[in-house]
Amino acid sequence: MSMQTRKARTIVENNEFKQTAEAVKPTFYKEEKSPEHVITTYQDKDAIHGWNLRKEGGWEDQKEQAYGKNDSFIVDFKDHMVGYVTLSLKPVGSPPDAPLHLKLIFGEMPVEVSEPFDQYDGWLSSSWLQEEAIHVDVLPTQITLPRRYSFRYLKITVLDTSPKYKVVFDQIACETITSADFHRVPTLNHPDPQLAEIDRISVKTLADCMQDIFEDGPKRDRRLWLGDLRLQALANYETVQNNDLVKRCLYLFAAVPNQKGEVAANLFIEPKLIADDTYLFDYSLFFTTTLHDYYQATNDIQTLQDLWPTALAQVENALDRLSEDNIVIDDPSWWSFIDWQEQLNKQTASQAILIYALKKATEMAKIITDPKLNWLEEKLTTVTNAAIEKLWDKEQGFFISGEDRQVSWASQIWMVIAGVFDKEKNKKLLHHLLEENPTVGINTPYMYHHLVEALVISDNRELAIKYLIGYWGKMVDLGADTFWELFNPEDLTFSPYGSHLINSYCHAWSCTPTYLIRKYNL
Amino acid sequence: MSMQTRKARTIVENNEFKQTAEAVKPTFYKEEKSPEHVITTYQDKDAIHGWNLRKEGGWEDQKEQAYGKNDSFIVDFKDHMVGYVTLSLKPVGSPPDAPLHLKLIFGEMPVEVSEPFDQYDGWLSSSWLQEEAIHVDVLPTQITLPRRYSFRYLKITVLDTSPKYKVVFDQIACETITSADFHRVPTLNHPDPQLAEIDRISVKTLADCMQDIFEDGPKRDRRLWLGDLRLQALANYETVQNNDLVKRCLYLFAAVPNQKGEVAANLFIEPKLIADDTYLFDYSLFFTTTLHDYYQATNDIQTLQDLWPTALAQVENALDRLSEDNIVIDDPSWWSFIDWQEQLNKQTASQAILIYALKKATEMAKIITDPKLNWLEEKLTTVTNAAIEKLWDKEQGFFISGEDRQVSWASQIWMVIAGVFDKEKNKKLLHHLLEENPTVGINTPYMYHHLVEALVISDNRELAIKYLIGYWGKMVDLGADTFWELFNPEDLTFSPYGSHLINSYCHAWSCTPTYLIRKYNL
Repeated sequence: MSMQTRKARTIVENNEFKQTAEAVKPTFYKEEKSPEHVITTYQDKDAIHGWNLRKEGGWEDQKEQAYGKNDSFIVDFKDHMVGYVTLSLKPVGSPPDAPLHLKLIFGEMPVEVSEPFDQYDGWLSSSWLQEEAIHVDVLPTQITLPRRYSFRYLKITVLDTSPKYKVVFDQIACETITSADFHRVPTLNHPDPQLAEIDRISVKTLADCMQDIFEDGPKRDRRLWLGDLRLQALANYETVQNNDLVKRCLYLFAAVPNQKGEVAANLFIEPKLIADDTYLFDYSLFFTTTLHDYYQATNDIQTLQDLWPTALAQVENALDRLSEDNIVIDDPSWWSFIDWQEQLNKQTASQAILIYALKKATEMAKIITDPKLNWLEEKLTTVTNAAIEKLWDKEQGFFISGEDRQVSWASQIWMVIAGVFDKEKNKKLLHHLLEENPTVGINTPYMYHHLVEALVISDNRELAIKYLIGYWGKMVDLGADTFWELFNPEDLTFSPYGSHLINSYCHAWSCTPTYLIRKYNL
Repeated sequence: MSMQTRKARTIVENNEFKQTAEAVKPTFYKEEKSPEHVITTYQDKDAIHGWNLRKEGGWEDQKEQAYGKNDSFIVDFKDHMVGYVTLSLKPVGSPPDAPLHLKLIFGEMPVEVSEPFDQYDGWLSSSWLQEEAIHVDVLPTQITLPRRYSFRYLKITVLDTSPKYKVVFDQIACETITSADFHRVPTLNHPDPQLAEIDRISVKTLADCMQDIFEDGPKRDRRLWLGDLRLQALANYETVQNNDLVKRCLYLFAAVPNQKGEVAANLFIEPKLIADDTYLFDYSLFFTTTLHDYYQATNDIQTLQDLWPTALAQVENALDRLSEDNIVIDDPSWWSFIDWQEQLNKQTASQAILIYALKKATEMAKIITDPKLNWLEEKLTTVTNAAIEKLWDKEQGFFISGEDRQVSWASQIWMVIAGVFDKEKNKKLLHHLLEENPTVGINTPYMYHHLVEALVISDNRELAIKYLIGYWGKMVDLGADTFWELFNPEDLTFSPYGSHLINSYCHAWSCTPTYLIRKYNL
């Protein structure tokens, strides 16, 4: 993603779409929260990232404590917070004869308040690490920090006061913010407490990512990505039902396509609407599928009519990448996301996503009675047949991908979701996958979601539940308050960014268990 | 000054005095300034603190430069600034996909932007070091930093952006602030360019310390100290003539005395008027002398009448410290400032300051026709005679101080200013002092002021000019834009705080050459 990869492009803005998006800006729900405990962290090889925590007493009992130079403490809010932090500070001793210098570190996970940030050397910007150094010239005072944080733990270090005074933290509070209304979530009453808990944490994860837009993660990137939006929207329909927020995000994407009509992989909302210069084959197609799902959930025909041309354009652009054999061309000029998995060849999963999107497009074309319906249906048949003909390896019983005929989990999973084969054959394919366990596996909750959904729709309910509990349940066991961006049960330190400090621990694409549980009555 | 030294005390507030002080809050004069050059600093053993600077080009020519991770640069505003800084930032490259993390260091002197602050280990709070680390979530933007800085150099380090973008500093500006009106300064036209330059820098120093009150230093402590106020007021009458600011400060001190009527050595103005818990024998007496000087400059009889009881109380409290021999008692229970000079015994200088203050008090008592006039005159005689009888060492031809009969510069200088002897004898005493050069010398511009004034009033004009040029002129030669809190020509790294990084380089008590030059036509 270096600057060198940028290509020339022109953004074709649609002001009407922008205004429609503006008109459905969300209402925010706010709540004031206080820390529950003062804690310390300690090394524990069985804990996630090797850090466990110990309660040192209730915050209310300790908040009159006075802190001087180099003193520090960690407060635990007992749940994941997204919001704005206020500190009330008062001096004790002589009148403060020098400024107060404080360091604040916000952590979603114990590791963030335990390992020093200055040793971070991952490849994502260190500016995502949530820390502040602030000077306070006048005490007592109340400070509301201007930035929004995503955290459960707050470590405060007094860098300096003066020998004449110390400081008391009269009040530490977080005003949480979300555009999710928890009152709209239908009661689940699930008989299995483990699934009930996974559902609860999924809804919490979704809500903490629902802000002015659907963010991918409130810690990082705080941005509207299409791959996340698609899954958030699905979870949203089953729970908090802020369907206008989905509508808003779809109109935003459609408002700033490039000269070929492609929607960007993600958008910046501030200081104004800007399409990022990253375009992903799969993410663009998810615009089409997300519009389809939105219409299914809402019957909002006006939005469907407005955005259909954009949805169609994504499919048309994707079809332009087909070889003479009707297979998605795999060369250095393209980029498809699929998963954080370095070894993965993305050709076959991309072909499957094209098929999946073509099906949704065909359904929408029927509703709209678009003259291109027949053409779309023909393309769907062609592309599906090509997949079976060119990518299916009968001998191995697996879809292969790329020049090296790679067998990966992702290729099989997406071909099942695309419905290239019938249910029976899909069921067999997945059993074969689980048995053979090809080395190019899956790394993210995002791909685990697709695995579980593939199992469900191919009549593998029990296996689906097993994998759902085995994966998200493991995060719960490890203390997750919200579900994590990255989780590899075999490697708890996994990060595609070179450091688990920079991972997001409340991430949209991990919120889907509530969708899977509720939609499919798991 | 640790917390253990605090004594029980009660503040007796006078609300009328507070309101009078409030009624003469100053007008502020503001000006927008930009950097002139980009500079680098380099080690040079002949430069002050071992750091010299090199111009790397005009700021205007370089301000379109884009900076990425770990890039840094230093801008030079070409003069001392006190004010609020605004940065206009714009990204170049892809849309910023991560926050910008900046470090700012403000330096009055090259050393501050050259040596790392994290190695500071002086005994004043490191929170005085002028640095900020800030995150910027949305670009482009304009940021006005909320704190006021005192600086000439600003070092900006980009701690991180992201690989996708860099940052350009479109504009860097400082809105300077002062309550001094330079238009009121009478033209000097001094024939000696060196004295003219010293005068100019003195006025600049005074002006930069004139804010809502007379501050001791705009970098540190930004506070109203009586020892500084006395000298600032004297310089003010000869130059910018904001006499109401002197009046305001006098009423503030008088508004919060303790139960014995003592005024504190310094006041805090924010968040509300608070008397510091430091009381200094000499500083309290300077309330009395400052009121006297104010009346001399303004003929404001109302203020004299209002504040006379406070002025008298300082003298009465000081007289309470006399031994049966009528000498100020020197024991561990008291504190007199005199100078930053660890070896100095302060008894004799304090006795001299008491005599000096008694004289001013007697003059005021005459104007007020206070019934205590006779009593004051008697005390003046008693205390003066005691000084000659007990502290004058005829053999040595010096005043001695303390149990160890210490001979110091400060004792002689203050006894001359107190006028214990006549002009002729004082002249001889000072010649003797300069010849003998006792080891307990003087360290601060504050004491150099008293040396020069002592020389002037004992008819040593040429010597006075020599010392004035030799001391303040040396600071000019070393590149001073404003005069420094501490300066020992024999030890350029001198700091009573364990590090020259924390020294203030624009300090009120150093602004007096303009007073000396103009008042005495030097």
